[in-house]
Amino acid sequence: MKVKNINKSFKKVEELCSPRVISSVENCYIKIAKVKGKLPMHVHDNEDELFIIHRGTMILEVEGKKFDLVEGDIFLVEKGKPHRPIADEICEVILVEKKSTAHTGDQDTTITRTIEEQLRSL
Amino acid sequence: MKVKNINKSFKKVEELCSPRVISSVENCYIKIAKVKGKLPMHVHDNEDELFIIHRGTMILEVEGKKFDLVEGDIFLVEKGKPHRPIADEICEVILVEKKSTAHTGDQDTTITRTIEEQLRSL
Repeated sequence: MKVKNINKSFKKVEELCSPRVISSVENCYIKIAKVKGKLPMHVHDNEDELFIIHRGTMILEVEGKKFDLVEGDIFLVEKGKPHRPIADEICEVILVEKKSTAHTGDQDTTITRTIEEQLRSL
Repeated sequence: MKVKNINKSFKKVEELCSPRVISSVENCYIKIAKVKGKLPMHVHDNEDELFIIHRGTMILEVEGKKFDLVEGDIFLVEKGKPHRPIADEICEVILVEKKSTAHTGDQDTTITRTIEEQLRSL
């Protein structure tokens, strides 16, 4: 058992749009990511993805609809819904998603990271 | 699909030690709770319980060991481990736990709330 601190962990994240696992619960990982830019639209056919805005703002585009998210906002993207984050400035995001979730879904892009990369300790 | 804000939701919580569901992901609920006092030691035999300290401090006693938790700390109590929160002042906590989890585990106490009570909208 180990206590981790989300604020301290965020300070150690250098790479953008590269989720890092900081904990787990049941069949889900808790990840943190610094999001910036317009990410590729993607879909997770079999997995929910929960977004919690830790610091900053971003737009979450889901099925063509845009949601403006601010600090403290919590938003569930249900399985099967095409989505993408868009952030002009760095936005710190906490993600809760099934361990099997590929973070860029069905898209293999230059920002796609394997789960082993995401599991590197911070 | 609906955006909820954790900060605004916490402001609406009046009752202490009474978790309220604000979202869900996969087979888990995301709950918020204002914890104060020395809660009864309890155990969830089949469910993990993840604690994220949103604001304030508390001690989490797990199997006789005490962990001092501060804002931003994230801590997994794995299934089967007896535990209890202890907080001198109100501590705002985000919980991620399986939908089947009884928040006071095997203990039916005066602070025990049914899932229907926890699901009341904020």
